[in-house]
Amino acid sequence: MPDLYDVAAIGNAIVDVIAPADDAFLVDNKLDKGAMMLVDEARSTELYGKMQAAVETSGGSAGNTIAGVASLGGKAAYLGKVADDQLGRVFTHDMRAIGAHFEPTPLKGGPATAVSMINVTPDAQRTMCTFLGASVEFTDADVTPAIIEGAKIVYLEGYLFDAEPARKAFAKAAALARGSGRMLALTLSDGFVVDRHRAGLLAFIESQVDLVFANEVEIKSLFQTDSFDDAVREIIPRARLAAVTRSEHGSVVVTNAETAHVPAYPVEKVVDTTGAGDQYAAGFMFGLARGRSLTDCAKLGALAAAEVISHYGPRPQVSLQTLAKEKGLI
Amino acid sequence: MPDLYDVAAIGNAIVDVIAPADDAFLVDNKLDKGAMMLVDEARSTELYGKMQAAVETSGGSAGNTIAGVASLGGKAAYLGKVADDQLGRVFTHDMRAIGAHFEPTPLKGGPATAVSMINVTPDAQRTMCTFLGASVEFTDADVTPAIIEGAKIVYLEGYLFDAEPARKAFAKAAALARGSGRMLALTLSDGFVVDRHRAGLLAFIESQVDLVFANEVEIKSLFQTDSFDDAVREIIPRARLAAVTRSEHGSVVVTNAETAHVPAYPVEKVVDTTGAGDQYAAGFMFGLARGRSLTDCAKLGALAAAEVISHYGPRPQVSLQTLAKEKGLI
Repeated sequence: MPDLYDVAAIGNAIVDVIAPADDAFLVDNKLDKGAMMLVDEARSTELYGKMQAAVETSGGSAGNTIAGVASLGGKAAYLGKVADDQLGRVFTHDMRAIGAHFEPTPLKGGPATAVSMINVTPDAQRTMCTFLGASVEFTDADVTPAIIEGAKIVYLEGYLFDAEPARKAFAKAAALARGSGRMLALTLSDGFVVDRHRAGLLAFIESQVDLVFANEVEIKSLFQTDSFDDAVREIIPRARLAAVTRSEHGSVVVTNAETAHVPAYPVEKVVDTTGAGDQYAAGFMFGLARGRSLTDCAKLGALAAAEVISHYGPRPQVSLQTLAKEKGLI
Repeated sequence: MPDLYDVAAIGNAIVDVIAPADDAFLVDNKLDKGAMMLVDEARSTELYGKMQAAVETSGGSAGNTIAGVASLGGKAAYLGKVADDQLGRVFTHDMRAIGAHFEPTPLKGGPATAVSMINVTPDAQRTMCTFLGASVEFTDADVTPAIIEGAKIVYLEGYLFDAEPARKAFAKAAALARGSGRMLALTLSDGFVVDRHRAGLLAFIESQVDLVFANEVEIKSLFQTDSFDDAVREIIPRARLAAVTRSEHGSVVVTNAETAHVPAYPVEKVVDTTGAGDQYAAGFMFGLARGRSLTDCAKLGALAAAEVISHYGPRPQVSLQTLAKEKGLI
């Protein structure tokens, strides 16, 4: 199979609903600051009714990553489930408009396209309440072999571990990737996801995953340790490669042979941290697909993350390719 | 009837779809730069398919004005038609979240909630293609007497002259306003609207309107003159009061007795001119409803316009009340 894509990703196809909020709003509504909580339709409607005036924009963790890869000039494909409704068409439009391959079979007669209500506090932290809607109707039937087999890196979003049919889809994607000699990457997505699926995630990583993305909270939770260094030691040799982000402290890239610490890019003002990890993964994988050193991959990740936290919204607003060229990274 | 609202407005309830574009895109798609063009559903779908990745946000000219009035701390009500769909719920949520009164009867089984595709070029000009959808199903049955009779100023959006049922709704609103001693304001909205409805607009102004909002293009078109001064002379005594905006050259406020020139507020960088006129009207009417001098009204309008052109999106992103207090205007 020829290399059709630098990165192909499977994720929850979600439209973000972004509004400012104060800390009292989080407390009043029992929302864990900085986390992603799943809500049902009734709670979703209730919370939306209380949120401030919002802006809607296509999101979803892996969808954001694919947008970042495309913005860097990479070839990208996305697999995810939208409903046959207005927000599903919005998500589909935006994915295609950035130049990514996305040919969904929209869900008819089921739940609506997923939405994530993102409350951004003045400290730039985002707290998310996600109604998964149609996105969890993603099944192995939605895993197109030609996409997986044609991608240098296949990227899976840990959030999908919450849905049984999606875990089957992951197994299919992993088998296809392995069979065609493709690299399989996984992001742990969220500390609570790791809590809910620790054993399943560990088994999946050990048996299938080449590259793990995590932040500090997630990797500590995965190995139930308070020590970052211990957690990093545990991840290798379960995976061949891991990239662990530490917010303003940069990231750590680990293999069997080396551990590299790469600083974060300075940001004038952090406005909204939504999508920081997603863009880090985008930069890192774009570099990897293009044969760059691991340190350069981490720098590309840091640059992409710095762009996205400088404004509201989870996807790049300027060309990351231009930005990376200016910094001499590509 | 007590004063329930500073401003009640009737407008096309529209969700904006905002994306960057270059000038070539406008030329290729035969779009008149800076104008608002009406498109049918087929053309809407075609153009959306060609647009860049976008952000969705509640808009509509009078809706934006109501958001501005609310942001200034004013009491505001809105009348407009949305469909019973996702974007209709988005529009409704945002209107209520800013504290405005909005109790629509959503349209079922008809066209979708209106969308305006706004292409913003690097020079910050916005070019709009609007699919009016459900918004033009607004009829005189949607004009709630208690809202009109309880508003110090009743504000009508000229765009609605394109729909016959909405013109009937305007007649009803005008009669209710007159009967209850309320001030009736009208914005001309767009040069092409004036072209399409010159005679109707003039007759409506002469018989009903107290306060006219226009920009330079619109007022020249209304009186078919190339002279700004001539146009301004013509508007009075047809209306009692007119506020005419001239972009970076500020605005001119005219009555029988006086003509005041008020400068624009300096803006560091103009990002997106969408909503500039709408916010000017918001500031002006808020001042008027609170008994401020005409010059102060124009200053409030200029301040609100300056805020909205400093970022993408047609509604204020910071509290205009705070901003106006900082500037000593309220």
